[in-house]
Amino acid sequence: MAGPNKPMLRALAGERLATPPVWMMRQAGRYLPEYRATRAKAGSFLDLCYTPELAAEVTLQPIRRYGFDAAILFADILLVPQALGADLRFVEGEGPRLSTVTSAADLARLGPAEAVHATLAPVYETVAILRGALPPETTLIGFAGAPWTVATYMIAGRGTPDQAPARTLMYREPAVFDALIERITEATIGYLSRQIEAGAEVVKLFDSWAGALPGAQFERWCVAPARRIVAALEAAHPGVPVIGFPRGAGGGYAGFAAATGVAAVALDASVDPAWAAREVQSRVCVQGNLDPLLLVVGGPALERAARACVEAFAGGPHVFNLGHGITPDADPANVEAMLRAVRG
Amino acid sequence: MAGPNKPMLRALAGERLATPPVWMMRQAGRYLPEYRATRAKAGSFLDLCYTPELAAEVTLQPIRRYGFDAAILFADILLVPQALGADLRFVEGEGPRLSTVTSAADLARLGPAEAVHATLAPVYETVAILRGALPPETTLIGFAGAPWTVATYMIAGRGTPDQAPARTLMYREPAVFDALIERITEATIGYLSRQIEAGAEVVKLFDSWAGALPGAQFERWCVAPARRIVAALEAAHPGVPVIGFPRGAGGGYAGFAAATGVAAVALDASVDPAWAAREVQSRVCVQGNLDPLLLVVGGPALERAARACVEAFAGGPHVFNLGHGITPDADPANVEAMLRAVRG
Repeated sequence: MAGPNKPMLRALAGERLATPPVWMMRQAGRYLPEYRATRAKAGSFLDLCYTPELAAEVTLQPIRRYGFDAAILFADILLVPQALGADLRFVEGEGPRLSTVTSAADLARLGPAEAVHATLAPVYETVAILRGALPPETTLIGFAGAPWTVATYMIAGRGTPDQAPARTLMYREPAVFDALIERITEATIGYLSRQIEAGAEVVKLFDSWAGALPGAQFERWCVAPARRIVAALEAAHPGVPVIGFPRGAGGGYAGFAAATGVAAVALDASVDPAWAAREVQSRVCVQGNLDPLLLVVGGPALERAARACVEAFAGGPHVFNLGHGITPDADPANVEAMLRAVRG
Repeated sequence: MAGPNKPMLRALAGERLATPPVWMMRQAGRYLPEYRATRAKAGSFLDLCYTPELAAEVTLQPIRRYGFDAAILFADILLVPQALGADLRFVEGEGPRLSTVTSAADLARLGPAEAVHATLAPVYETVAILRGALPPETTLIGFAGAPWTVATYMIAGRGTPDQAPARTLMYREPAVFDALIERITEATIGYLSRQIEAGAEVVKLFDSWAGALPGAQFERWCVAPARRIVAALEAAHPGVPVIGFPRGAGGGYAGFAAATGVAAVALDASVDPAWAAREVQSRVCVQGNLDPLLLVVGGPALERAARACVEAFAGGPHVFNLGHGITPDADPANVEAMLRAVRG
């Protein structure tokens, strides 16, 4: 099957399909016993990310089990800060810990955006392996964290409930904050370009904490960097679709869809499909947005909600997905039930 | 000054004022030394809520210090579950703990909606004291939690990061969930009616976890109960404005403003003022939405953001406020700087 005939690429090109393509955020994850087995073999989480054969293996597991229409590279959004020179480790059960960037001096200690590729080379190798290993109908998605979201971790040195450290730097040291966003933006353009060169057919930009940006700052720190990344990728690799995920953007989803040049917008679960069909899907393909909790709950609630989601977006281009990542306590059998509900 | 001449009431009636009225969510709170002193005297947090003289005192403190245009009754959204029969205590540094409601049997153990007033009588007394004690230009706001938000605490027995227990009950036991929302809705109508009878000139409905509702459920569990409460209050007390605060509603703010009958919608800090001016303020008065972190940060960032907020909403009725409650680490001097920026 040639590239443009893959269901995922057709939907991203703006085609309305009778059955939407389906994949799930975090589909290679702890809810799958085969993932846990490979993860145990790899050693640390970062070892798994940086060992191409194993990263490719966990990427392929959900494709083998469920036949999703897309595979997403297994990696982490914090590999870019690490490649820029931040110390990074994952503390079991607590999440990431990084050296912090809160001053011009900290920023000066980071490497240049062009220097990230030595560290990230194993990721490009994973992409290349995957491109050769995937079934012909399956689309390969690369990804990166969006600059604001990556910055929230680099500034706080960890995940934070409300991203207050990053907002504080944004208010107190706008020049440092701006320079950090700039550095991440440049590194991200290079990182995604190399993923595309290695075989990624689509790339997704995860702005997981977009909803923590004050509304008046959303355009500058979420929309503008996304627009710049999309434009740079389009110049270097014309026609490769970008999916934007400004999670929690609320009413801002409409402006994001209109102003960034993305081919698709991923919607979090809080977005009303009726509103999004009107305000977002009228401009670009939409992806989403089933509540991931339904893959824990299962039963008739799952089936009803999955069908309702398909119907709500039936009038335009749609990629079926969750509103956020599948959780470790989800039942793999519920994923099958979801697929039956979507694919009939 | 007669009621309708108070700036807050004029704005809520749809009037555009040259200087917007100002108050702050959680303005009676731990950032104020005089609050901490009264709180220490009261004993427990619930003792403070249920002792009318002390609850009135902390309500008045920020009015004396800052001359806000509105005072909001000091109480807690969990007094209604307690009045319905739930066990409630506040664990220092951890938050509320309640007996849980997750089955029809649990629901049957709760009292009827009409029986809440014995427990809540001290709140009505606080309102009456305040109505007599406030300066004539200051508007008195009563409040309650919205049914969905109150239900999230009653179902989980505590605050939860993602309201998963409440969403799980909503999916698994829709009849129990619906009956619980119904019970809270009825109790809330009675509670707010009594507050109005005691002297509240405005009431506010806090749906703090509206953003955790799946988008497809927002209309049913946030908009519909709010519409019902507004209609019941309008029938019993015509002309008393209701402020709705569906926090995190995103694009849903527009539909909420159009469909509930509220006089004003309070916007959280993530909402872009330019979007809200177009989509929300065109229908009702808007309230908000400065990032509360700016009252910690202070300085030029605070002044710029406060002025920008005033300007963004200058084209219609606006009540200046924060996007969420002021935090304990805010500097009281920054509140003065904010007021200078807003009032000039």
